[in-house]
Amino acid sequence: MRYSQYYIPTLREVPSEAELDSHKLMLRAGMIRKAAAGIYSFLPLAQRVLKKIIRIVEEEMDRAGGMQVLLPIVQPAEIWHQTGRWDVYGDEMFRLQDRHGRDFCLGPTHEEMITTLLKNEVRSYRDLPLRIYQIQNKYRDEIRPRFGVMRAREFIMKDLYSFDRDEEGLNRSYEAMYEAYTRIFTRCGLKFRAVEADSGAIGGEVSHEFMVLAPAGEAVILYCEGCNYAANDEKATAALPETAAEPLLAVEKVATPNQATVAEVTAFLKVAPEKLIKTLFYKTESEFIAVLVRGDDDLNEIKLGNLLNQPYWLAAPEEIAEKLGLPVGYVGPVGLKEKGVKVFADLRIQTMKNAICGANEQDFHLRHVNLERDFTVDTFADLRLAKAGDACVHCGQPLQETRGVEVGHIFKLGTKYSSALNATFRDEDGVEKPFIMGCYGIGISRIMAAAIEQNNDENGIKWPLPIAPFQVIILALGEEQKAAAEQIYRELTAAGVEVLYDDRDERPGVKFKDADLIGIPLRLTVGPKSLAQGEVEVKVRMTGEDFRWPLAEITARVLAYIKEHDPVGA
Amino acid sequence: MRYSQYYIPTLREVPSEAELDSHKLMLRAGMIRKAAAGIYSFLPLAQRVLKKIIRIVEEEMDRAGGMQVLLPIVQPAEIWHQTGRWDVYGDEMFRLQDRHGRDFCLGPTHEEMITTLLKNEVRSYRDLPLRIYQIQNKYRDEIRPRFGVMRAREFIMKDLYSFDRDEEGLNRSYEAMYEAYTRIFTRCGLKFRAVEADSGAIGGEVSHEFMVLAPAGEAVILYCEGCNYAANDEKATAALPETAAEPLLAVEKVATPNQATVAEVTAFLKVAPEKLIKTLFYKTESEFIAVLVRGDDDLNEIKLGNLLNQPYWLAAPEEIAEKLGLPVGYVGPVGLKEKGVKVFADLRIQTMKNAICGANEQDFHLRHVNLERDFTVDTFADLRLAKAGDACVHCGQPLQETRGVEVGHIFKLGTKYSSALNATFRDEDGVEKPFIMGCYGIGISRIMAAAIEQNNDENGIKWPLPIAPFQVIILALGEEQKAAAEQIYRELTAAGVEVLYDDRDERPGVKFKDADLIGIPLRLTVGPKSLAQGEVEVKVRMTGEDFRWPLAEITARVLAYIKEHDPVGA
Repeated sequence: MRYSQYYIPTLREVPSEAELDSHKLMLRAGMIRKAAAGIYSFLPLAQRVLKKIIRIVEEEMDRAGGMQVLLPIVQPAEIWHQTGRWDVYGDEMFRLQDRHGRDFCLGPTHEEMITTLLKNEVRSYRDLPLRIYQIQNKYRDEIRPRFGVMRAREFIMKDLYSFDRDEEGLNRSYEAMYEAYTRIFTRCGLKFRAVEADSGAIGGEVSHEFMVLAPAGEAVILYCEGCNYAANDEKATAALPETAAEPLLAVEKVATPNQATVAEVTAFLKVAPEKLIKTLFYKTESEFIAVLVRGDDDLNEIKLGNLLNQPYWLAAPEEIAEKLGLPVGYVGPVGLKEKGVKVFADLRIQTMKNAICGANEQDFHLRHVNLERDFTVDTFADLRLAKAGDACVHCGQPLQETRGVEVGHIFKLGTKYSSALNATFRDEDGVEKPFIMGCYGIGISRIMAAAIEQNNDENGIKWPLPIAPFQVIILALGEEQKAAAEQIYRELTAAGVEVLYDDRDERPGVKFKDADLIGIPLRLTVGPKSLAQGEVEVKVRMTGEDFRWPLAEITARVLAYIKEHDPVGA
Repeated sequence: MRYSQYYIPTLREVPSEAELDSHKLMLRAGMIRKAAAGIYSFLPLAQRVLKKIIRIVEEEMDRAGGMQVLLPIVQPAEIWHQTGRWDVYGDEMFRLQDRHGRDFCLGPTHEEMITTLLKNEVRSYRDLPLRIYQIQNKYRDEIRPRFGVMRAREFIMKDLYSFDRDEEGLNRSYEAMYEAYTRIFTRCGLKFRAVEADSGAIGGEVSHEFMVLAPAGEAVILYCEGCNYAANDEKATAALPETAAEPLLAVEKVATPNQATVAEVTAFLKVAPEKLIKTLFYKTESEFIAVLVRGDDDLNEIKLGNLLNQPYWLAAPEEIAEKLGLPVGYVGPVGLKEKGVKVFADLRIQTMKNAICGANEQDFHLRHVNLERDFTVDTFADLRLAKAGDACVHCGQPLQETRGVEVGHIFKLGTKYSSALNATFRDEDGVEKPFIMGCYGIGISRIMAAAIEQNNDENGIKWPLPIAPFQVIILALGEEQKAAAEQIYRELTAAGVEVLYDDRDERPGVKFKDADLIGIPLRLTVGPKSLAQGEVEVKVRMTGEDFRWPLAEITARVLAYIKEHDPVGA
């Protein structure tokens, strides 16, 4: 491709609306433009990257027994009513009516659609397993779309749905997808990690996220170097500490005037935060709930939500004061039961002895409070946010922390959707059973952003070779080198190499800057000095390495480089 | 691909909701399922066909200098307000609001979006021409979606937009697209014709439709075998007849009691219909309009609409009686001007002499009415529907009629959108000028339906080889032939042939029926007799030909066949 005939509207200025590197660079490299909040046009360079990613994904889905289909984006409301998700999705779902006033949505996902499609058509266990996927736009009306295509309202996804006759089948499908995902992100040239994750609104019990590691990633990942444990912070858990071997002391009430926060109380009483019990108040539709966590821990609201399994929200201080007669900042578990409050507690509360907590009286705390003797708990559960330094739940080594961008998410759904939609098959024993389902998503457009987030420097993008828009960029420094550059361009193109030839009448400085910005992996510079020596200057964008390659061997050298760095694609 | 592991839910029954062969066959062959009126899921077989069509389209668009992008489906209302099409599209546009109450539509087309995208970024004549395309879903809320994916509300299109600095550039872009389209439909293996067409709501002055010829096509095509003229019936024109060489006779009023239609009047007065003037009444927002056509002609409302260039509708008989005091069935042009009615007439009215028309009096007609002497016309224009047998406007030969399915439409838009959106570039002379645009659409999902419409028989689909979901289907008649069939399957697959191997435990009759229904071009049957002779039975689905090919040569023979029938794809 000749640069002069190609549309790459690069920008010199750093766009002010962008926070993330990937967002800035995609704008600057002329890859995307905003059409509305969270809605983007993908320009030619981006489209080339998307197609490369899509091709890798398709090849691996097909290899894993996936069959590609194309389901509607515009979906009738009825099927969403049947699973109850028409209401669950709330404002996040784009809704519309047709000219006859019928309700539709723009699919945020396709469990309802695929299950309805197969229902009544796939009748026998002999037709299973089925693994069906598609690649197309998805829609979520995010309350705060941002970070460019990283969190857009219109985005491209691959979604595969597996249908099996039993748990064993589901496990095989899940394994096949786990392996396919691992191959996909490896083939894309990305550093990534699969982590245990929460299933969220999609439902089901087991799920893994595939995270592209990047310092600006939204997700926090906790992982163990001792074993292979890794989970995102929504899901991560840690080993419990030993219970302190102390004798129980008698409760003491101490004055703590104007000492309401954990930091204030621990400083004032000269104790470590892990001696404190923090008491948080939430509300559901029907009642107040108190949640206890250790003073040095943070509550994991995702875990609490999964436990409650109903809408809940933080209670306001005024409400707590008015309805329960409790002074926020000085609340504690002692006597809460008597006020009709249900008490949930993190498991670590069980390991505490002689704890400190609010006295439920303004400006007072209690010392030497003990579980069972002084207060009781309705339900214990893992409710804390795990953090770096925690002991690994499997091997006890301290957990490490890193950040990542979620690019894939796989779920064991079980029968959640097949039961709701009454989608059954006749098993070998003649009994009608609901399909055992799994679903498996990849954010295609997000991979592109994540790849940039992971691979960039102050000058621009550093594309991993397998998903780069072009493999090679050729620069001729002056008019005299154009014939040689043209010749290399023709030879490489004829050899199947994807070449962008910068044939523009621009100064070398501009060409170098643009080449760095758009991040083509191999830059071949045809300059007067090297050309006189029968050589071409080669620069590897990812590593900064530079070489001189003989002009006569250039095609062979480039092909060898590609084969080495993109063995599957080459 | 093994049939037993592939999802092809064929149906034995002919679905009652389908009228067209293509619709019935796509349902029966397990290619599509309806999700809602005009909204379909494409199952694996259909998806394979779509991908083949898309690949051909992409290759030809790229060859013609097209750059692929991906524009949003969800488009902000503002840009549609700027061109006025937010209102023009009416109920045909799917509209929605986001969570903040902002208006959006689902793009029925992308002129507004692409023009807005390039505006302010493409600044100089040096950056032109640009040819930018995408392939993705489009949305039109058809009042009567029908015929399956032929006239759907959600459908897949390729749309390219050209931006040039002058008319000459536009002509080159248009030519390039015309040629690319010709190559695309040829490569798809379709019988088609490019015809002159009306520009409709898209606007612009020159346009061609590409029609796949099929007897059930919605579009009527008139074409000349003498020259190359071809146009759809909305646009087609014909040569004018000679003006009759008769002396003008005096007007006579004749009683025609209860003879209100052309058929009645011509029978009653014993004259040919071409002696009559038909007078039709229409209304615009501001006035009544009379339109005159010859008694044997039909008015072409598209031509009338283009002439009026404003909303108009047929006037009701009561209105004509009340407001104009005219008796429907007995109306004529004489004296209309005096009633304040504007008179439009088809060009053929100019060639008539001594015509018959209504007397504007119940149960009376006039004879020997003549233009200028007895009535006047405000505007003459080509307003009739051309028909088979008309003389070709270029060479005089009689026009022929056929029917087709519109699969492509190309338009010279000029500055309609660039002017409305104020999208300009600085020309060589330093002057800011609006882009000269063209737009070029292909109905990807419609090609699939049109191909079936053109190629089917009572047993099923007959895919043209280049867009067939698989090139070869292998049938083993019995258990004893499975090893040989398996061997052929492996060899062909290894040679890059797309094979569907029917390895199901089904009776041969079922396998033959399904093979015919899904229409795979080459059927290889491994039966006991032929196998004993070291041969395979070959049947060509398109032509019905059958051969025996030696087992030892099967791969070479299949490859040679493919190369012969799909030279570009092979």
